[in-house]
Amino acid sequence: MFVKNCWYCAGWDYELVLGRNDLMQRRIAGESLVLYRKLDGSVVAMEDRCCHRQAAMHLGQREGDCIRCMYHGMKFGPDGKCVEIPGQDHIPDKARIRTYPVVEKHNWIWVWMGDPAKADPNLICFAVGPSDKNWNIKTSKISVRTNYRLEIANLMDLSHLTWIHRSSLGGTDRWVTTPIKHTMLPRGVKSEFVLRSVPAPAFVQHVFPPGMLFDIDMNVDFTLPCSFILHFQAFTAGTATEGPSNGQLILDSWSCQAVTPVDEDNVEYYYSWGPSIATDRPGLADLLLAGVNQAFAEDKAVLEAQYRNIKERPDGNLVNIVHDAGPEKMLRLLDRFLAEEAAEATREANLLRRAHG
Amino acid sequence: MFVKNCWYCAGWDYELVLGRNDLMQRRIAGESLVLYRKLDGSVVAMEDRCCHRQAAMHLGQREGDCIRCMYHGMKFGPDGKCVEIPGQDHIPDKARIRTYPVVEKHNWIWVWMGDPAKADPNLICFAVGPSDKNWNIKTSKISVRTNYRLEIANLMDLSHLTWIHRSSLGGTDRWVTTPIKHTMLPRGVKSEFVLRSVPAPAFVQHVFPPGMLFDIDMNVDFTLPCSFILHFQAFTAGTATEGPSNGQLILDSWSCQAVTPVDEDNVEYYYSWGPSIATDRPGLADLLLAGVNQAFAEDKAVLEAQYRNIKERPDGNLVNIVHDAGPEKMLRLLDRFLAEEAAEATREANLLRRAHG
Amino acid sequence: MFVKNCWYCAGWDYELVLGRNDLMQRRIAGESLVLYRKLDGSVVAMEDRCCHRQAAMHLGQREGDCIRCMYHGMKFGPDGKCVEIPGQDHIPDKARIRTYPVVEKHNWIWVWMGDPAKADPNLICFAVGPSDKNWNIKTSKISVRTNYRLEIANLMDLSHLTWIHRSSLGGTDRWVTTPIKHTMLPRGVKSEFVLRSVPAPAFVQHVFPPGMLFDIDMNVDFTLPCSFILHFQAFTAGTATEGPSNGQLILDSWSCQAVTPVDEDNVEYYYSWGPSIATDRPGLADLLLAGVNQAFAEDKAVLEAQYRNIKERPDGNLVNIVHDAGPEKMLRLLDRFLAEEAAEATREANLLRRAHG
Repeated sequence: MFVKNCWYCAGWDYELVLGRNDLMQRRIAGESLVLYRKLDGSVVAMEDRCCHRQAAMHLGQREGDCIRCMYHGMKFGPDGKCVEIPGQDHIPDKARIRTYPVVEKHNWIWVWMGDPAKADPNLICFAVGPSDKNWNIKTSKISVRTNYRLEIANLMDLSHLTWIHRSSLGGTDRWVTTPIKHTMLPRGVKSEFVLRSVPAPAFVQHVFPPGMLFDIDMNVDFTLPCSFILHFQAFTAGTATEGPSNGQLILDSWSCQAVTPVDEDNVEYYYSWGPSIATDRPGLADLLLAGVNQAFAEDKAVLEAQYRNIKERPDGNLVNIVHDAGPEKMLRLLDRFLAEEAAEATREANLLRRAHG
Repeated sequence: MFVKNCWYCAGWDYELVLGRNDLMQRRIAGESLVLYRKLDGSVVAMEDRCCHRQAAMHLGQREGDCIRCMYHGMKFGPDGKCVEIPGQDHIPDKARIRTYPVVEKHNWIWVWMGDPAKADPNLICFAVGPSDKNWNIKTSKISVRTNYRLEIANLMDLSHLTWIHRSSLGGTDRWVTTPIKHTMLPRGVKSEFVLRSVPAPAFVQHVFPPGMLFDIDMNVDFTLPCSFILHFQAFTAGTATEGPSNGQLILDSWSCQAVTPVDEDNVEYYYSWGPSIATDRPGLADLLLAGVNQAFAEDKAVLEAQYRNIKERPDGNLVNIVHDAGPEKMLRLLDRFLAEEAAEATREANLLRRAHG
Repeated sequence: MFVKNCWYCAGWDYELVLGRNDLMQRRIAGESLVLYRKLDGSVVAMEDRCCHRQAAMHLGQREGDCIRCMYHGMKFGPDGKCVEIPGQDHIPDKARIRTYPVVEKHNWIWVWMGDPAKADPNLICFAVGPSDKNWNIKTSKISVRTNYRLEIANLMDLSHLTWIHRSSLGGTDRWVTTPIKHTMLPRGVKSEFVLRSVPAPAFVQHVFPPGMLFDIDMNVDFTLPCSFILHFQAFTAGTATEGPSNGQLILDSWSCQAVTPVDEDNVEYYYSWGPSIATDRPGLADLLLAGVNQAFAEDKAVLEAQYRNIKERPDGNLVNIVHDAGPEKMLRLLDRFLAEEAAEATREANLLRRAHG
């Protein structure tokens, strides 16, 4: 079950290039896509399925702004409309392949999987990408064999930093004990963390004098389907103030994370981290990326084993704890969107039936 | 769904030998078989399943012309009848394993998967095998994860040479534009191609002077389930005539191809190519084999991706094109044979019921 | 289908240690377990599934005698009761993970998968383990992709030594022809073999003068679910007597074998073999272990192919032979236990319904 009227991240912009291997295959929300760039650089997203006999379009050939299926040579424009059927003059009107609205923003490629009429680019979340000159952002990605709801639950409850990430992003039990301020957004939740006099995350403690403490301000905007945009600031302990802090800033950074459901059993996770130019130091951006790389490998092991357990016993009785509040907010919002789309599909089917009856 | 009253190719004769590892396992049309040679060299095909507890016969032992299941030592004659149950005198009459009619012809081993009473060796298609002294035929095989109907569609529409095989067997768009003469056969379709002044296939163009053209006569006999017997002749351009040509023959060759459905999701593809002794040159047979090897690897990639797409969306709307005419002829014939066998099975079940009622 | 009120072998005691990697994952009769040792060395077996969101406990952390789920930090006592929920004072009573009765005996770890009230350690079969000072027992294990019923049938009919194990444990057809005395036990079958003047097993024939013969006394206690405890004695041919023999003893040995169903499609096989100290010779224990290692690899090939055949055709018509008598005795006993447990589950469900109605 996926929300269709939604922008899904199809990857980093640098993954899709002009050139020899320029047809990129992706699977998003259970559908197979091929993506390619037109000569002007803009991105086309098309179903990875020729309308003739379902040959895979990503095994085809880009020709100018068109794409040719290399099984029987049918050629399609960037709008999915067939423009050539070799050996045949007439091109039937239904000879077309579905295309999807695409927007590039903050170095991510976003694809709208639902009704194109509703594809509003303003619904794409804010992010800071690696090409932003004010920040030194490094990027990566990882595949996880889990359902994306488990990723949502993972990201909406950072108390797990204390446990799963005790050797990477964690290193303090303050992730468990600090109250978080949650605010509902139209398509998500804003979470605000204020930590005072805490040790550095485990993976950078060796960089600082033993026992050194920090004040941390952290804001997360989490929006559907699963975009996690984190602003992380560290100050000299005792100097941070309420609200926009004017404390002694040691690190100002963004980590932007987009989890794309591939299908019910897999996600593709595109993520970044990096400091502001003002707080950058040699090697710092690489160090931060190494930290999240380690952390997401830790998450992967836990989420994959958890998902195997859940598939084995979908009705396993569950005990709820205080930290489920965050995940529940986001999962309820997801369920509301899913229910609204299902209701709308029913309404449209009824209208159609009445029109034909 | 497989036609049962049909000869299926179980492999090249040289794959099955006397000697130490002389029990060959095959899976054909969803059934598991073991094949072995008797001392006189003739081939036995038997269900790969002991009638006691279904142990695999191919893990057994050939003893003279018999085969012994090495789980509990039951020994079976080449007719499948049990001849020894160690530790027990009485051999029940039902202690027998199904055997299948087998014929070796043109260096292929053919197995009849249906009613043995109907196994007419004359139904085996003509072919030219590697042991034919008038031809220098080289052989190979490849496994493809696809349904055999997609192989039929592939082989009955050679317009794909222009596209899939642009770097191997193709190299001209004349495969798309040349009209083909199709003639129905009792169990297949004969296709005749006449190409005049066309370039050499891509994989041999470097052998000839730049721009050199050829006349090509090509005849294919395609018979159920999926035997593709191709006679390919190339002449100096401008010298070939209608009918049996007396043009300047450059290459006279046969490519014999048998596609065996393993089960619904897999095929085993046994194929060859080679010139006549009269038109052979040093290295030519190897060059031709390298050409089909490359081409069938190209087909494999396309057919496997297509099959994944079709399994994902079996009801995917399809647009038909002019090149579907060939595949449709053969697939309709296949469907007719399938329907006839289903009807006959119903008739026989009714007769049986009346006999017992 | 598994008998639940049963001791299942979870492995050799030396596989589970204190120390760094001290959480051992096992799957027994379709359930996932984590096992660990308390500080006093005793073993805890717990469901491998946190009661919060089903995270895998074997990815957690042992803390003293407790185990902490490292997803959200919930800590559980060795009785499965939650003792800490980080960030929350109240611990709900239902915050507990199922634990299983465990007993270590004869160097095996035994887990009771059914009603703990019925877990009687006296039901654990007798065995001779590697720590027994009177015997030089060597141990190993192997995984087999088969249903455990096929293992039962294999072990209850040793006529297969003549065939499958012709190059290892076999080497004579006397395993087929010698009558076996079967006696029913409360939870199994005792089988007594008396072989006189037989050659040595194939894998040790090179050790003795050509043609040397032996008298063999062999007793097997086979108990549910699948424990095969074998006492094997070899005497100088012509010296062994009826009953407890006072013949010239060449080898006195035990081979203890426990087959644990992992799930319907897999078993884990823990086994040993070794001589008495009195009949030991340098290298003998290793030689015996090499013999069973080879034999169980032979069984694995046959049982896995047989199981694939049976899954493909579960209704395959079967011919019964004289050697099925042993397997049938044990499989009928298993079926009786399965039926009794099913009947009891129904009775308990009815009682519960009446109590609530």
